[in-house]
Amino acid sequence: MTETATVGEFRFACGETIEDLELAYETYGEFDGSNAVLVCHALTGSHHVTDSGWREDGEETTAGQARAWWNDVVGPGKAIDTTEYYVVCVNIPGSCYGSSGPPSEGPDGEPWGTDFPPVTVGDWTRAQRRLLDELGVGRLHAVVGGSVGGMNVLDWAKQFPDDVRRIVPVATAARLDPQCLAIDAIARRAITTDANWNGGDYYGDGPDPDDGLAIARQLGHVMYLSKGSMERKFGRRAAGRDARRDDFPEDPAGAFFPYREVESYLDYNARSFTERFDANSYLYLTRAMDDYDLSSEYGSDADALAAFEGEALLLSFTADWHFTVEQSRSLAAAFEAGGAPVAHHVVDSDHGHDAFLVEPESVGPPLRDFLADGIEGRAVRDEGTATDDGSGEGERRAPVHASLFPG
Amino acid sequence: MTETATVGEFRFACGETIEDLELAYETYGEFDGSNAVLVCHALTGSHHVTDSGWREDGEETTAGQARAWWNDVVGPGKAIDTTEYYVVCVNIPGSCYGSSGPPSEGPDGEPWGTDFPPVTVGDWTRAQRRLLDELGVGRLHAVVGGSVGGMNVLDWAKQFPDDVRRIVPVATAARLDPQCLAIDAIARRAITTDANWNGGDYYGDGPDPDDGLAIARQLGHVMYLSKGSMERKFGRRAAGRDARRDDFPEDPAGAFFPYREVESYLDYNARSFTERFDANSYLYLTRAMDDYDLSSEYGSDADALAAFEGEALLLSFTADWHFTVEQSRSLAAAFEAGGAPVAHHVVDSDHGHDAFLVEPESVGPPLRDFLADGIEGRAVRDEGTATDDGSGEGERRAPVHASLFPG
Repeated sequence: MTETATVGEFRFACGETIEDLELAYETYGEFDGSNAVLVCHALTGSHHVTDSGWREDGEETTAGQARAWWNDVVGPGKAIDTTEYYVVCVNIPGSCYGSSGPPSEGPDGEPWGTDFPPVTVGDWTRAQRRLLDELGVGRLHAVVGGSVGGMNVLDWAKQFPDDVRRIVPVATAARLDPQCLAIDAIARRAITTDANWNGGDYYGDGPDPDDGLAIARQLGHVMYLSKGSMERKFGRRAAGRDARRDDFPEDPAGAFFPYREVESYLDYNARSFTERFDANSYLYLTRAMDDYDLSSEYGSDADALAAFEGEALLLSFTADWHFTVEQSRSLAAAFEAGGAPVAHHVVDSDHGHDAFLVEPESVGPPLRDFLADGIEGRAVRDEGTATDDGSGEGERRAPVHASLFPG
Repeated sequence: MTETATVGEFRFACGETIEDLELAYETYGEFDGSNAVLVCHALTGSHHVTDSGWREDGEETTAGQARAWWNDVVGPGKAIDTTEYYVVCVNIPGSCYGSSGPPSEGPDGEPWGTDFPPVTVGDWTRAQRRLLDELGVGRLHAVVGGSVGGMNVLDWAKQFPDDVRRIVPVATAARLDPQCLAIDAIARRAITTDANWNGGDYYGDGPDPDDGLAIARQLGHVMYLSKGSMERKFGRRAAGRDARRDDFPEDPAGAFFPYREVESYLDYNARSFTERFDANSYLYLTRAMDDYDLSSEYGSDADALAAFEGEALLLSFTADWHFTVEQSRSLAAAFEAGGAPVAHHVVDSDHGHDAFLVEPESVGPPLRDFLADGIEGRAVRDEGTATDDGSGEGERRAPVHASLFPG
């Protein structure tokens, strides 16, 4: 179940301070002193990683929350086995699922809104460290996370290199490329030009900036999919007669043209997103992601990782253009340069960035074996690493091929 | 100089009719009975292809118009040599540069707005045919065009196969893939959710839906560039101190983060775009592009092209993800299946879709030689075609390598 901790005064990287940082979190499994695994959620995810063991006390489930986003990866008997590990996931500051952020209550009893301090990935890491202190967790067995959650993982190796034994940055990069920066910037413009955004002050009785947030989310979906997966999932097909076409205004001439499955998908998912996410949080969290640069305050990625002496497993996906295989390859080189044992497991998949969420059969085996045995884990490696012995074991460790797109 | 012809009653593919279709156009060079080359402009282009010979009568230049978009390709001594060919370019119906479209005057003396009939690429082709009849041009020596203008070219081979000797579809495809359909659909949602769009009725004294149109244009720019060109052109650099950051509303927390060059580029170009383009036209023309499918009314692309007995040169660009090399390859196969002599010239460039506009040095030579000598033209071929003799001439016809990004 979700718990909330108040960790006291918190100073953000921007220099601003808030008096009582609240952190919503969930834990799964039992802590034995050395089995803690911190899972870092992605941009619009929450601390609710899995439904496993969550309904035990009869509490309400995920209404109004991000659904359990790694149900097939975290749980009893799963890759991150909650009968073995003590799993902790914290809603990141700036988000909208219970931790302090724009929609949470500020010092005046009203929502912070845009008075909330700007947040960075580094702030997330330090907030997580504070919560773990509260929970009595010193050194972590592992930190695992995908997408911007993978940046959060990298930041652990950079800020608290001695506190982590193994890290798994999944489908991530040391920094976003300018194409993704551009799309995120456009998404923010869609929100702030929505008249209902109202300078960020929309928490009263008036309407929310749902149109802008919906457009931002639709751009996200395009980034999360690949040309191949969209071709297979939607093609150019017209949506069925039952598909709603009234989510967005349209002029009469538009009715001559088909409402396509791809539009229907985007509209449906965007509308359900606006019901669960906060527009200001979207601004804050995308800025944190865009701003993250592993090498900042250091000369290079390798220098930023030099103090990390644990092991790293990088997972990347061939058709992911949001966070590319090449970017993970570059990260692997940075770990190697710093002397950290690293494996880079490339999954051959056309699911795009979504692969890390929708292909538990690809993510699970290397993750499970790495948590248990480090980079020598059986299913871990498929690309050359510092410890690759060139023995031809590569066949056994070949990329996991994706099955057909589900649904 | 721009001329305007009224070609009388015009029935659109949708079944609606307007009484007097007006077409703005330009011609360059002298018609000798067999030297006419029709150039088809892209989505937001105009009939103003080149400044060459345009200022002769002292007329105002391109104020309020799309700039001469192929100045380095069309003109005296250029690849499409206006001392040799009679070049015609027509502003497509639905656009906003003088031809009938949403912002032009309707029967009641007011702008058509969204009462203008939906337009299709096929309508453009038939409108061009009508104008050429007025000009006394029967059979064309060639039809040339890029992007959706390339779809317009393909449509000539489909609708009027006997009227064209040679066609050059540049950076185009038989149909858009669902990834591009998605981005276009999102762009339209940005326009129609702009409160100033007002159901398409904004031609009075009130404000225009500039924010929505700006966002739509920014998405276009992302599609027109590639990861590589964005990396080189912008990287993650912060814009200089002089860069304006006030094009879009922002919350105070945003000021903590840099305003990046990529944002500055998008903002600057989007704002200049909103000064020259009409939001309803953007809706209409993107729908026409999205709807185009070469194979419609036929069983396949090959069947649609079967009646075409001229020659075709396809040009594609390696880093173009809007209209891919693979899509041109598929088109080449369709021409071959129909028996038409075809060459597919792949330009190795990281400029993305913009390459066809910004690399005249790549586009010019094959285009020039093809217009003169067909697919046997010296600089034409670099990929296998039906007539490829495998003689090793490939070296001489190797892809043109792009120079560094200008500016």
